Amino acid sequence: MDEKELIESITKEVVNKLKSENTADSSCSAACSGQPSGSRSSMLPGELAKYIDHTLLKPDATASEIDKLCAEAKEYGFCSVCVNTTWAERCSKNLSGTDVKTCVVVGFPLGAMSSRSKSFEARHAIEDGANEIDMVMNIGALKSGDTKAVEEDVKSVLRACGQRTILKVIIETALLTNEEIVLACQICKKAGAHFVKTSTGFSTAGATPEHVALMRKTVGADTGVKAAGGVRTFEDAVRMIEAGATRLGTSGGIKIISGQTIESGY
Amino acid sequence: MDEKELIESITKEVVNKLKSENTADSSCSAACSGQPSGSRSSMLPGELAKYIDHTLLKPDATASEIDKLCAEAKEYGFCSVCVNTTWAERCSKNLSGTDVKTCVVVGFPLGAMSSRSKSFEARHAIEDGANEIDMVMNIGALKSGDTKAVEEDVKSVLRACGQRTILKVIIETALLTNEEIVLACQICKKAGAHFVKTSTGFSTAGATPEHVALMRKTVGADTGVKAAGGVRTFEDAVRMIEAGATRLGTSGGIKIISGQTIESGY
Repeated sequence: MDEKELIESITKEVVNKLKSENTADSSCSAACSGQPSGSRSSMLPGELAKYIDHTLLKPDATASEIDKLCAEAKEYGFCSVCVNTTWAERCSKNLSGTDVKTCVVVGFPLGAMSSRSKSFEARHAIEDGANEIDMVMNIGALKSGDTKAVEEDVKSVLRACGQRTILKVIIETALLTNEEIVLACQICKKAGAHFVKTSTGFSTAGATPEHVALMRKTVGADTGVKAAGGVRTFEDAVRMIEAGATRLGTSGGIKIISGQTIESGY
Repeated sequence: MDEKELIESITKEVVNKLKSENTADSSCSAACSGQPSGSRSSMLPGELAKYIDHTLLKPDATASEIDKLCAEAKEYGFCSVCVNTTWAERCSKNLSGTDVKTCVVVGFPLGAMSSRSKSFEARHAIEDGANEIDMVMNIGALKSGDTKAVEEDVKSVLRACGQRTILKVIIETALLTNEEIVLACQICKKAGAHFVKTSTGFSTAGATPEHVALMRKTVGADTGVKAAGGVRTFEDAVRMIEAGATRLGTSGGIKIISGQTIESGY
């Protein structure tokens, strides 16, 4: 068996094992906290709302589109809105007094911004009201074998997050080998990140159930896994959750919880 | 005639030809300063080097690829290397004592990072040795009609740049109407930016001669215009310069100045 076959075989086993290890933990707070919740084959579309970060990250998004995003998140009960940091304050005000969180992306989508700038961006967004930070890992540093820099980068943003802000680290699975995915997840877990996240939605591909399963296997039960990019249908969403995802990033949340198919992923 | 003699002979011929075609604004510093230089139909590939920001912005670029980029820029005499801010210090050290500048991108490629974070990223990169800043305009604010926010965003980064650092503002022409391109250029000029730049290379399209001409017409002669994204051949490069570009951003500079065609733009 060659290396690729071995990886595929292990991945398949892990996915099957996860499917058979159904746990009882299916509440909304479990979804938001990042705890895996096992098989979801009997899920109803509406149950997915609390898994969803309702996402609008395109560079030309307008203020009125951002306001609409917030209104939709309140109406449908999504976990958060996920936006660029220029909109942090606006979303936070829009969502004040509701359960919907403001999630912002940092060092996005390339992850190649200096560490100090990433932590500044996070700190400033938190001052503006952000509750969750989705940072992009320094992929180039990982590819260069500088795992210390990758870890320090995560830790620097984690310090900006303090005790009350959730940190998710986007590892951009599309650009990594399976070995690098495992390494990236190990670094994130060691650094203390609350979630690992598959994708920015701006790279060559989005989340796959296989990558989600591999990430879940690597980080264990007490770290969240967010699947983003390519989550387009109710079936996609269920597949990601079955593979171990505890959060979903998508621009198509409304269609997903209505059981419809959307055209593009993010 | 052996290889060495042949090279010397050709070099001599080229140098003589360049000398005979000498105009006041054809020097390297004119290209770098952003002054338009009129028709270039008789340009030779080698003359283009000083127009080129030798660019590597992909998220998975490694330290050794960045080092290679710097070595190439020194060898071929490009105007700068253009990189993400995580590499500012490394490039600055690599290029120390040479004429090649370190150019970094800020708020890249979405431009939807908070203003304070953009100016922090720029300031920190300059501390790390960056000589030029290519920031992305807040496109969403422009689309929302908030021209004041767009101008303040540019001004905040310009303050970080101080007196010695060149600021280029990427307006991402692919996402704008012609009217919005004119408005964006007017705002950048009013704010005091040194260059307007067409594209990030990460959006739906790159530079076109038509957009470059419109930008040049709008900003006049004393502001630079950088064409980036889609500059793939020597002919493309000449077309952009003829349309009014005074700087070119491309990952294919070596092939361009050798008169070759490259496969992808950025």
